[in-house]
Amino acid sequence: MAQPMVGGDGAHSYAKNSSGQGRVMERAKELINEAIADKLDLKLLKIDTSSTFRVADLGCSTGPNTFIVVQNIIEAIELKLLQADRQNPSTIEFQVFFNDHPENDFNTLFKALPHSRKYFAAGVPGFFQNRLFPKSTLHIINSSYALHWLSKIPKEIVGGNSLTWNRESIRNKRFVNEVAEAYSAQFKNDIESFLNARAQELVAGGLMFILIVAVPDGIPLSQTTLGVFYDVFGSCLMDMAKMGITSEEKINSFNIPNHRPTPKELESIIKTNKYFTIERMEQLANRMSQSTFLAKCRTSAVRAVYEGVVMEHFGSEFVEPFFNHFTVKVEENASRFEKFQNPIDLFVLLKRTGDELN
Amino acid sequence: MAQPMVGGDGAHSYAKNSSGQGRVMERAKELINEAIADKLDLKLLKIDTSSTFRVADLGCSTGPNTFIVVQNIIEAIELKLLQADRQNPSTIEFQVFFNDHPENDFNTLFKALPHSRKYFAAGVPGFFQNRLFPKSTLHIINSSYALHWLSKIPKEIVGGNSLTWNRESIRNKRFVNEVAEAYSAQFKNDIESFLNARAQELVAGGLMFILIVAVPDGIPLSQTTLGVFYDVFGSCLMDMAKMGITSEEKINSFNIPNHRPTPKELESIIKTNKYFTIERMEQLANRMSQSTFLAKCRTSAVRAVYEGVVMEHFGSEFVEPFFNHFTVKVEENASRFEKFQNPIDLFVLLKRTGDELN
Repeated sequence: MAQPMVGGDGAHSYAKNSSGQGRVMERAKELINEAIADKLDLKLLKIDTSSTFRVADLGCSTGPNTFIVVQNIIEAIELKLLQADRQNPSTIEFQVFFNDHPENDFNTLFKALPHSRKYFAAGVPGFFQNRLFPKSTLHIINSSYALHWLSKIPKEIVGGNSLTWNRESIRNKRFVNEVAEAYSAQFKNDIESFLNARAQELVAGGLMFILIVAVPDGIPLSQTTLGVFYDVFGSCLMDMAKMGITSEEKINSFNIPNHRPTPKELESIIKTNKYFTIERMEQLANRMSQSTFLAKCRTSAVRAVYEGVVMEHFGSEFVEPFFNHFTVKVEENASRFEKFQNPIDLFVLLKRTGDELN
Repeated sequence: MAQPMVGGDGAHSYAKNSSGQGRVMERAKELINEAIADKLDLKLLKIDTSSTFRVADLGCSTGPNTFIVVQNIIEAIELKLLQADRQNPSTIEFQVFFNDHPENDFNTLFKALPHSRKYFAAGVPGFFQNRLFPKSTLHIINSSYALHWLSKIPKEIVGGNSLTWNRESIRNKRFVNEVAEAYSAQFKNDIESFLNARAQELVAGGLMFILIVAVPDGIPLSQTTLGVFYDVFGSCLMDMAKMGITSEEKINSFNIPNHRPTPKELESIIKTNKYFTIERMEQLANRMSQSTFLAKCRTSAVRAVYEGVVMEHFGSEFVEPFFNHFTVKVEENASRFEKFQNPIDLFVLLKRTGDELN
């Protein structure tokens, strides 16, 4: 059942609750501006007035967020160039590469490109665990809310053994240690591949900005709102089986190729890569309060993200009843959502070292 | 009414008649290979082993022809690099930009990209009369069967005056001198813009390959098969008006933004641009005989090209009866098609001079 936005500026209002999200984006912008001002060394990058400055956004989707971030990056670089030499206005040209997997809707992305943009735009289809660009051709890479997507479901999960999980674990496989470890190992593999590919593509001194949703350190997944989300999602699937709309076998073979790391987990993976230094790692102000309203908000956001995978696995007739039921269930579990800690928005600034590639 | 392909290897067979088209593509490949072997100066291009070699295909559509041409270009360059230094195998990486207008179906293009390609691929949406790439970043540009598309209908044609054409000229406006001159002037403008944009993007010594369908020098349009095509097309439109399916006003406001130049016309436009030298200009073997079969073949090719513009102007219900009628009319006019000379496939090789940009 559709619920209208809560008006006014009370505790549950949209205006009040969306400001958290706005604060996250605002803080990410500040961190990017500071990074470009303080950590970007134009001489090290070998940028001169006739250069092309190349920026890539990995996991761009169809906009408009990617355009906002890219415009901010370019304005920060222009400001830096202006401050570096006020006498000789720079004639540097910008080229921006928008990357996402080959099934992304690039047609929509291209039609949405801002008309008055200050850069030459290109779309790059491909998986960012692989190489996407020629060596040493990028100066800045951004990736917002994309690195949690895995290249595949861990092989331990899709194997024949997976049917041996008991009923409770079908409802929420992510709480099973072996499953959590398999996802974590796949994430480690994928981030290592990602960093090695980017190390080839980024020039020495180049910067990479990563924004990712993480699980707070030291708190079991089951005691976070993300854990509650997984549990409610799984329990909804089980309800569908009870109603005869799907089967437990079908639910057991449903897996989503993503993983939310903890800050420590991500940090330790990055630190094994000698081509990058962590210049900054900051937990941004929480974008959500644990309010009931936000649980509701979350529902439509969840649908936006998961509708595709749910439809692919369970079929299109499944989608509507499932998400309707999910909305109801989230309401019922509001107090559980309010009890636990939210995931965090983690900003990581990496710098490409001068180390030559092997 | 659908007609099956004519089998066997008789005069009207597909096998016989398609060989002309194959010959054109084969010859274009030879000319590109020769150009890369003889006219590409790697030192002038400042290509060393750590460089990125950048190729752009302008007007790429959705493949697969663009992939075939690009692969051929890259293999020719690899051969040249190998011959230049057999001791030190090149580690040069290739980046290929596929360009077409923003309404092109890049999703289809991206999904069709060869999996085993030797290059990093990117799509670039935009009109090639404008800048598309940063300055001095491309080494080779290819454009096959695309440059006849104009940036717009000449303003003289869309003006209020256009209703003053008489009945015969509505049927075939292209035979009216003022109209032909307006299209020719628009083509000149567009090619000048195209060359000026490419002069900025191509490095000194960079090559550009152009393949374009041209009208033979010294023959009036009305006495070429292209003229017969225009006439039959216009007469079909008039028949539709007689049947009450459309109106003469609607036909009068129907214009297709393309122009087929003569070789001399194209040559003289290029020669006014100081940033390019014409290294070669060759009429390729005719891809079509004037046979009745080819007139039929042409019908489906015509539909592939013109269905979009016809649908946009006359509506979707118009398309099927129109092209059915067109097929019949082409048959009726077979002897006229056989009497006149076909348009020619023209290959032009341009080289970017060392002249600095103003």
